[in-house]
Order: sequence, then structure tokens, then C-alpha cells
Amino acid sequence: MLNPEILFQTTPENYKHWKLQLSGPVATLSMDVQEDETLAEGYKLKLNSYDLGVDIELADAIQRIRFEHPEVRAVVITSLKPRIFCAGANIYMLGSSSHTFKVNFCKFTNETRCAIEDDSLHSGRRYIAALNGTASGGGYELAIACDEIYLVDDGNSAVSLPEVPLLGVLPGTGGLTRLVDKRKVRRDRADVFSTLAEGLKGKRAKEWGLIDDFFPRSKFDESIDAVVKKNLESSSSETGIKLTPLEFQSTDNSRDYKYVNFKLNREQRYADLTVYAPEGPQPTNGNEIHELGAAFWPLQAYRELDDALLHLRVNEPLIGLVCVRTKGDAETVLKIDEALAANHDHWLVREIVLLMARVLRRLDLTAKSFFAIVEPGSCFAGNLLELLLASDRSYMLKDSDATLAVSELNAGAFPMSNGLTRLQSRFLAEPEKLDEVLGEKKSFDTDDADDLGLVTFAPDDLDWDDEIRLAIEERTSLSPDALTGMEASLRFAGPETMDTKIYGRLTAWQNWIFQRPNAVGEKGALTNYGKPTQAEFDYKRT
Amino acid sequence: MLNPEILFQTTPENYKHWKLQLSGPVATLSMDVQEDETLAEGYKLKLNSYDLGVDIELADAIQRIRFEHPEVRAVVITSLKPRIFCAGANIYMLGSSSHTFKVNFCKFTNETRCAIEDDSLHSGRRYIAALNGTASGGGYELAIACDEIYLVDDGNSAVSLPEVPLLGVLPGTGGLTRLVDKRKVRRDRADVFSTLAEGLKGKRAKEWGLIDDFFPRSKFDESIDAVVKKNLESSSSETGIKLTPLEFQSTDNSRDYKYVNFKLNREQRYADLTVYAPEGPQPTNGNEIHELGAAFWPLQAYRELDDALLHLRVNEPLIGLVCVRTKGDAETVLKIDEALAANHDHWLVREIVLLMARVLRRLDLTAKSFFAIVEPGSCFAGNLLELLLASDRSYMLKDSDATLAVSELNAGAFPMSNGLTRLQSRFLAEPEKLDEVLGEKKSFDTDDADDLGLVTFAPDDLDWDDEIRLAIEERTSLSPDALTGMEASLRFAGPETMDTKIYGRLTAWQNWIFQRPNAVGEKGALTNYGKPTQAEFDYKRT
Repeated sequence: MLNPEILFQTTPENYKHWKLQLSGPVATLSMDVQEDETLAEGYKLKLNSYDLGVDIELADAIQRIRFEHPEVRAVVITSLKPRIFCAGANIYMLGSSSHTFKVNFCKFTNETRCAIEDDSLHSGRRYIAALNGTASGGGYELAIACDEIYLVDDGNSAVSLPEVPLLGVLPGTGGLTRLVDKRKVRRDRADVFSTLAEGLKGKRAKEWGLIDDFFPRSKFDESIDAVVKKNLESSSSETGIKLTPLEFQSTDNSRDYKYVNFKLNREQRYADLTVYAPEGPQPTNGNEIHELGAAFWPLQAYRELDDALLHLRVNEPLIGLVCVRTKGDAETVLKIDEALAANHDHWLVREIVLLMARVLRRLDLTAKSFFAIVEPGSCFAGNLLELLLASDRSYMLKDSDATLAVSELNAGAFPMSNGLTRLQSRFLAEPEKLDEVLGEKKSFDTDDADDLGLVTFAPDDLDWDDEIRLAIEERTSLSPDALTGMEASLRFAGPETMDTKIYGRLTAWQNWIFQRPNAVGEKGALTNYGKPTQAEFDYKRT
Repeated sequence: MLNPEILFQTTPENYKHWKLQLSGPVATLSMDVQEDETLAEGYKLKLNSYDLGVDIELADAIQRIRFEHPEVRAVVITSLKPRIFCAGANIYMLGSSSHTFKVNFCKFTNETRCAIEDDSLHSGRRYIAALNGTASGGGYELAIACDEIYLVDDGNSAVSLPEVPLLGVLPGTGGLTRLVDKRKVRRDRADVFSTLAEGLKGKRAKEWGLIDDFFPRSKFDESIDAVVKKNLESSSSETGIKLTPLEFQSTDNSRDYKYVNFKLNREQRYADLTVYAPEGPQPTNGNEIHELGAAFWPLQAYRELDDALLHLRVNEPLIGLVCVRTKGDAETVLKIDEALAANHDHWLVREIVLLMARVLRRLDLTAKSFFAIVEPGSCFAGNLLELLLASDRSYMLKDSDATLAVSELNAGAFPMSNGLTRLQSRFLAEPEKLDEVLGEKKSFDTDDADDLGLVTFAPDDLDWDDEIRLAIEERTSLSPDALTGMEASLRFAGPETMDTKIYGRLTAWQNWIFQRPNAVGEKGALTNYGKPTQAEFDYKRT
């Protein structure tokens, strides 16, 4: 590994690139990228350009606002640099990164932007992009993930997507999709805008729907204040909880959090990942949950799972398969789901369930294979059943006391990116099975689960070890690229949404371009950016 | 160019690989690929494997059945080879083809399979895949494009998608998408099936929804007959027309059909393509249209346009931009649309309009840029207005007598792959403009068109030549790959369908894989298929 291990945990006190300012119902997130504080060698983060480290802080800030500052109703995203909002992903970072890293970088930044929209849609916080200077590339893509966009009118500042004309790649952090699908910019105008390196300024940008309004520099701050005020109709007097640091112990081949652990089988290129149910009595009402805060099992366990998934994605590229197990008392997990369902009106419960849903989508979008392994002592129940449903396959030991169980939350609390529940997606051909599975709220033994189609295979004790071993060996021997493309096609049957378009269509094209000689070859546009040499293209098209 | 020019026209008398047998309401299309009759050197088409030449015949046969044999209500697709239905795309052909050719090959075969579904959906012909032997890879993908699939049960014949396990690529001709979205196979079963080189036979294949039924060899023919009979509820006594050969004159840099011509500006890497309106009186009722047959302008002009687009895609990869013009009397075009709308119940009119829609979708899916150029004397009216709406941009000369005009057909006769009309797609943000544009049924001069948002730019006479020249120069200087990814993202705003998933998501991943070292590198799976050497993978995943 060229780069040191990347950590996904941070806290506002440790931010290098963002300032989080809180003032009652308004949070202001100001970008002030420190050009030397990079995640790797070989580039400087000039002009508020970003690398993964900058985005990890942004993702953390958004998450913390949701949990620690529920009183916030509007988030202003702006910059502390004069004349520049954000120049997007750093080109030299992209140019010097491996294909794998570029893919991971884009996926994480996409998830961060989708998390902004998730907060806006489900928790009603309004995100306001206050572009006090030029927003180009990923800078404008960050703005377009917000609810409203305001640009300073100083004769100079513009919004732009210069990726195609300058770099020969795509505005692949959702930019192209959000342009036509979210802001519904006319496709011919989107075409012009996306090939115009210098972008568009105030009046025309507004006319084309790229921004909501523009204000002169002298009145910019007060105009933003006025916009914010308009967005503060609702108020909230809730008190947040503290997202305490996740603790874990690790070796070269393992990591143990409190409720999650994984062990890497490096030679065979797979990981064993286990999620543990909690023990003892669990809270049943909002106050008790609030008191427990970050230590409440669903919050802690899913934050740990999130961290583990990100670690495996970015720091363990050679691990191609994750075998998912659960351990503990299914009844306790179901009781927790009951409490979450009963208190869904409580702001903290809502945020916890939304976070669980985001983590499960992170799993859906992880380009590694997942096999769920159901053995005696497991607890694939309620929210943990989603881990099995999210897996590419499941194996359940026959004639054992292993069971699966559903809860109310399996009926809609954890939608996939395509808007369906994982059960809906599984039973597209037999929607009547949904009622059967969800109706009786009981647990299913291996025969039931097999009959209903909840598991893929149910080998008996005699075959179990061999079957699992062979399945793992076979999976990890296949082309990792073919598996990635296959899983991206099979996991999301049914409708498509803006999110799935971003992760499926746009990302796939970006990944294609990210290895084309026209981008990354010796004469490619990305390779030659900022050099005296010019890109030379192979102009073939189909 | 390594390969000789590929021609897309053929006739049943010239088929090398298919037999088309007609028996009243039943057509039987039998695959009997001649292994030496390849489009290029270096491979043999063993076991009913196919190259582009085989698929050009299939596409032609389906088109001819629709126009020449409207009495056909059921099409049986089967094989004349013992024990093998079809082995899919020829691997050695894929292994020895350029990336560009692979992309073109997959797109065309996808369009052919979508044309089968288009015929089934809109014209009610039932397609029955009679798998008298193993259908693997593209062979099964052809079957899955049919309405029903029946497999011989001989202890040997199977359906399979061995691309991932054997070749390190995807079943990218719609296979993965149709598996979960059309046949709604459970995603974990689809995962197992798509990694199982040997595939599945009779009973299990049926249980998993991969086939509709299986019959023993001794009863296969009679069972298929019985299935066909069940599908012959409706009957038709219409008489077809003859799809006469398209004639054209060509030079190295031009091609002139009767109503379509193009001129290649090779140095500047763009083409000027012009569609001409017909002259003189046009038929107004079904009988007159039937009498004219293939000479009726919409049929002839759109068949010519189709042929021209395919030629540009496959034989002219260095042409990156097509400037589209129309010439002639807009009134005549509108009169034709009126006749088509008035006679939409006539089978031939229905087939003509459906063909026009398919050709326009072929344009939407062509990975070259399109600019519409509206000058005096043009006739972007009704169906020809779709050419402008399908273009990435349009330029209309100000203060001239150039006009645009709509007809009833712009309101729904030519849906894009995403199910929207091009006007709906254009006015996603302002659906009220649809009424404005469609309501008055008048023609729009440059100011109207500009105000309504029907055109992108309306330069005046003084700027016209420079603006067009600069736009062309700029477009053709950009990275062709970035443009392809950008256009694939901007052209299809709004909903996604199975078709757009196939052309967007699945195809993008396949294209990605088609240039990964794990597939096409020295140690890639595609490169090493059938050789004593084995593939060696870089196992990184994200």
C-alpha cells in the first residue's frame, strides 16, 4: 500500500479544512482548505480544492449536526477564502491516484452529498449554498446537492463544470445527473454548460436554473441572512447527544469494535464480519434512548459497521468478499426494533433509523461481494435481517436452531437507493410473499426460510463446511471487475431514482473514463493537466 | 481501418446464418451459423456463436416479418444445430476486436433484442424461444428477450450465463438486467446463476424462473407446436409490403440516399447530415400508403436514416459530431404526419410510426454529438422536429424565414427509451410549456422558438457562420470519451426503464470491464480464453 491507512473518524476540534459555527437554528459550514494538509504526498490543496480528507470532515460535520445539534434548521455552506467557494476535487490528487482510489474517492463524496439530501428530505434541515466566489467542478456539485444556491455577483465569480472541457472526465460526483434530474436544467443548456470551462455568472446562471439567485458582494452577507431567515419557519428546542469516538482494538488482520468485528483472511481474500446483538435490558422510550445516546446499541453498532465498511473499501482493496454473521439474542434485537418503531416521532429515534438506513445503503453500494452465513446462535432479526437481505447470497444451516425473524422495520424503515425495501426488491416476482413474510411477525426456521425464499441455500450439517468453503473459494477466484459490474446490475432491480442513476449510470461512465487512455494515458487530459504538454486524444466514437 | 466496411443491408435470400420459414401465422427463425462466414479474419463461428454479421441478419429478419408478413402472429426462434441453440457472442471475435468495435457490437445486438420486445409490446407478435439445445451467454440473452422460453430436457441442455466465471466480462446484451427486471429472478438466485459456468437445466431452471417450461427431446417439437397454437388467438389477414433495397451513391466522403445524405469532413471530424422532405402530393389513407409501400417517404427516409446512422457508428469512428439539417417543404412533412395520425389503426401505418420511433431512439443512443442547424429552407416540422429535439444542441438563424413546427405525432408517437417524449424530456422543469408548444399547432419563428426554449441558440446573420464554425471546432476538440459519458447522462433525464438500464447502467459497466486489464490485458480472462495459459487477476475491489 502506497498510502498510509485512512481513518474515517474525526471531530470538529480536529477539522483542518472546515469551520463549523453554530448560532441557534443556523449552522455555518465554512470551507477553508489547508493546502498542505493532504492525505497523501504529491499535491497541494489550492483554491479550496479537496481530497478525501476534506470530504471525511464534511461528512462528519453533517452527521454531527444531525445528532449533536437537532436545533439547527438551516445549514449554510460557504467558504472563508476570498473570491473562491471551492475548486472541486484536486486534479493532481486525481492524476496521481490509482484507479481503485479514484473509484473509492468518488463513491464516498457521492455518499456525502446524498447524505445532505437525506437530511434535507427526511429531517427538514435546509441546506443553503452561499457561493461567495467561484464554484467549479466538485465545488458546484457540492452546491447542487444543497436545496438552494446563491452566487455572489462581482463580475468574476461563476459556477462551472469544467471536467469535460479541461480534464476529459465527467462531473461524476452527481453533477450531470443533478443538473438535469434535480434542477431540471434543459438538456441542451446542460450540454452547453458542461462543456464551457469558464462556466456562467449571475444573470445567465439564474436564467438557466443553475443558481437560485445572485447578490452583489456588498450585499451578499445580508442577502444570505435574509434567505436563511425565510428558511427558519419551523423551530426545534431539542437537545442533541454527543457522538463519542468509536473505540476499537486492531491487529494487522482484525479489528474489534464493541458490537462489530472483522477478521481478514488475506490469503483467501475474504473477511469474516460479525455484528453482535446487545445484552441486557434495552430502553423502551425516547427519554431512555436519549439518555443512552451514542451508547444505544443501534447507533453504536451501525456507526461501527459504517466505519468497518469504509475501512474495508479504502484500506483493504484486496479483500473481495465479506462473510457476514450475527451473534446474540434475536429477541433483544426485535425489542429494540419495537422501541424504534414505537418512538419513531422522537427526533433522535428518527435520526438513528435514518443512519441505519444510510449504513445499509453503504453496504449495498460496496463493490465487494457479501455472503450472509446463518448459523446457530445468530440473530438475523429485524434490522439485522437487512444484512442478509442486502447480501448477494445467504447460506443457512439446515436442521439447526438457527432462525430468521422480521420486525416492523423491515417493512419500510430501511429503503434501498432505488426506494424499495430489500424485501420488496427480493420478491419483485412474488409480491404476495411480502405479506406472508411480514404478516405473521414470527421467526422462520431453515425450512420456512428456504420455502419462502428468504435464503439462497440451506445445506445440512454434513455439507455445511465444504459448501461454505467452496463458495468462498469460487467467489474470490472470479474476476473482481466482472463481479462489480454484475452486482451493480443485480442488486438494484426495479425502479431507478436520482441516487441509483448517480451510483449506477453516472458512476459507471466515470469509472470507464477514469481508465481510458484519453484521460489517464500518457497523453491523456488528466495526466497532462497543468503541464506545458497538451492532451492528445484518440478521437474514436461509436 | 482493419476491417472492410460493414454493410447493414441484407435480404433473406442472402442470409448465411438464419433460415426464415413462414407458415401462415407462424414464422420460424432458425439459427444455423456458418462458421467460416465471418465478418473479419481470425475466428470461426463454432456452435452457433455469433458476430455482428449474424446479428445484422437477425435484425433484418425481425424487421421484414413486421413489414412483409403482418399475418405472422408468433415467431419461433430456434436452432438447426443438434444439441446447441446458441453459444452467444464469439469469444475469439471479442478477444480480437478493438474496444470501439466491441462497444458498437454490443449496442447493435442490444438494439436488435429491444426490437424484438418492441414488436411484441406494440404489434402483439409473440416471440417464443425454442431452445432445442444449450443456450449460453448471448444465446440465453437472445432467449430472454423473447416472451416465452422453452428448453429441451435431455439431461444435457442448459441455459447459462458463463460470462462472469469464464470470461471476466458481463452478460452485457441485456442479460443481467432482464434477469432481475423482466423475468424478476430473485437477486440471490440471479447471482448464483450468473456465476455458474455450466448453467442450469430443466427443473431447476424452471423453478428459478429462467425458463417457462422444459420438454423431453422426443416431445419437444410437438410441445412447441402446442405452445405456438396457444399463442395464435388473434389472427390477421393483412398483406405485407416489400422492403426494397435502399439505394445510394457514395464516394469516400459522402453518401447520397434518396431522402438522406451525408458528407464527411474528415479533417475536422464531423459529418453534415441532411434529411429531405418529399415533393409532390402524398397519400392520405391506408390504401394509398400500402400501395406506395417502401417508397412512402417516412418509411424510406427513416430506413435511410437508420442505415446512415449505423454506417457512421461502425464504419466512421473518427467522426465525432453530426450536424443535422433538413430541407424541403415543412407543410408536406406536416401533411404526412396528419395522414399517419389519421390512419394510426392501419397496421402498416402503425409499423411505420414504430420504425420511425426506433430510428430516433437509435439516434438518441448513438455515441456521437448531434447539433441541429436550422436555416432558411429547412423543415424541422413534426416527425423531423424530433431530430432537433434529439440533438444535444440546436442553432437557429435569427431574422430569417426559418421556422419550426409541431404535429400531433410530437405528443407521443416517438417515445425515447425512458418512455418520455422528447418534448417532455426537454420541458421537465416547465411542463406547462408542453401545452403551449403542442396546443396551437402552428409554426414557430426564431423568436418564438427561442422564447419557448425549443432551440439552444439563435445567432443573427452576422455571427452565424462564425458561431457554427466555432461550436463545431470546440466540440470536436473535446475528449470523445468524456462527451460520450456526458451525453449518456444528459440525454435521458427523468424516469429510467429496462431499456435505459440496459443502455445506461449495464452497458457502462460492460464498457468499463471491456477495457480493464483483468479482461483484455495480457493476463486478462478474455485474452486467455481457450488458451493453455490462465487468466491472472488484479484482485482489488472497492
